Amino acid sequence: MKKLSIVKIGGNVIEDRAELNRFLVNFSKMEGAKILVHGGGKLATKLASQMGIESKMTNGRRITDAKSLEVITMIYGGLTNKNIVAQLQALGINAIGLSGADGNTIQAHKRPVKDVDFGFVGDLDGINSKLISSFLSIGLTPVFCAISHDGNGQLLNTNADTIASEIAIGMSKSYETTLYYCFEKKGVLMNVSDESSVVKNIDSKSYKDLLDKNIIADGMLPKMHNCFLALQQKVNKVCIGDISMLLSDSKVFTTITL
Amino acid sequence: MKKLSIVKIGGNVIEDRAELNRFLVNFSKMEGAKILVHGGGKLATKLASQMGIESKMTNGRRITDAKSLEVITMIYGGLTNKNIVAQLQALGINAIGLSGADGNTIQAHKRPVKDVDFGFVGDLDGINSKLISSFLSIGLTPVFCAISHDGNGQLLNTNADTIASEIAIGMSKSYETTLYYCFEKKGVLMNVSDESSVVKNIDSKSYKDLLDKNIIADGMLPKMHNCFLALQQKVNKVCIGDISMLLSDSKVFTTITL
Repeated sequence: MKKLSIVKIGGNVIEDRAELNRFLVNFSKMEGAKILVHGGGKLATKLASQMGIESKMTNGRRITDAKSLEVITMIYGGLTNKNIVAQLQALGINAIGLSGADGNTIQAHKRPVKDVDFGFVGDLDGINSKLISSFLSIGLTPVFCAISHDGNGQLLNTNADTIASEIAIGMSKSYETTLYYCFEKKGVLMNVSDESSVVKNIDSKSYKDLLDKNIIADGMLPKMHNCFLALQQKVNKVCIGDISMLLSDSKVFTTITL
Repeated sequence: MKKLSIVKIGGNVIEDRAELNRFLVNFSKMEGAKILVHGGGKLATKLASQMGIESKMTNGRRITDAKSLEVITMIYGGLTNKNIVAQLQALGINAIGLSGADGNTIQAHKRPVKDVDFGFVGDLDGINSKLISSFLSIGLTPVFCAISHDGNGQLLNTNADTIASEIAIGMSKSYETTLYYCFEKKGVLMNVSDESSVVKNIDSKSYKDLLDKNIIADGMLPKMHNCFLALQQKVNKVCIGDISMLLSDSKVFTTITL
């Protein structure tokens, strides 16, 4: 099977122009078919406050009302996505920016209201792997923003980590996929305050050990949970690290396998 | 040759949600391969003023500085484009939203500074007709916002009429193309205050007569000039009218041929 890399970058990378440039250079050097998924970061919150739109929270969780969705569509779908695409074009990568509505690539439904009404937030139903494969086969590099749609005209704000893993899972039928989660640390750390304590490999067995020893906790728990869900659904490998992990000579990052 | 329709809608249609919906319904009913090009309208000006960005004009012409370009990218490339795409998906059209940077579809260079520095405004160099043909052949309907790029990472604000005619010209090598300019009037009028005075057909000869009689003047002159330029470059037909012209039983609009 052909290889495919799916790379997710978070808000910390996007907000810092120099860091974003470094990331895009590294990404452009990756060999083979690849897909980029970007989150949003604080740019949307900043614009919302300039426009006098209040960020609504319930129990510490953000609510996406109609106005917030407009801001997200402007920033993630417009400003961030189009600038990343233009910069990748300058680096020789034939990038194409997509929301989930474009080509019906990412299908979702509005999250059902239970204790909390999250507003226009999407829970994923699936991806259009056939169209994404067509794009890859003609040399395009899809760049997804974290917006899906419900097929009835409604755009939906969607978690970028989840979009990345759903794309990796959906593409695993036809590709040997590696999912890269880029963030500000060098990987999963044995000691959270020691950047040199990166755990190089984690599998199902060592993951259980790390959990038992309370080494993986807090914010890393749902991330790791998602990684294993992806691996169980035929994603070949998941890597967690900073932007240097994309370089072919990089050695310091965490690789997760079943 | 297969037929291809290229439809341009202006700001007046986009700003009015009900009118935009009516347009999209009519557009979705058009048979055969089709491409939509949308301008921006006053939404960008409104957002710019909310953000405290001044609209800069020189000799009555708008200047696109870096901040204005950001707003244009947010509104045209993000909010307007993605919402049109999501609505077309709901109408059964597999739309894909594009700026000129996406897939390197519209190439341009920054307008050279002569008497006026227009800022980040693009003069067109060409389109990627091969990729656009690939999209059409797999059933996609491209939806272009009026943004091009220079291949060096710079997005450029570009006139939507010009983008539409450049796409029509570029696609005419492989398709029998009709270019539709949708605006608020029913067509070219013999008497500008009488909506029932639509000129049904104009060709090179009758165009000269209309010019001699001063019936075509003011804002319509550059539009007509562009239409004949497109026709001279193998576009089959140009139609000017309101959104009802897209319906198969429509009779009242202006058709321009060589």
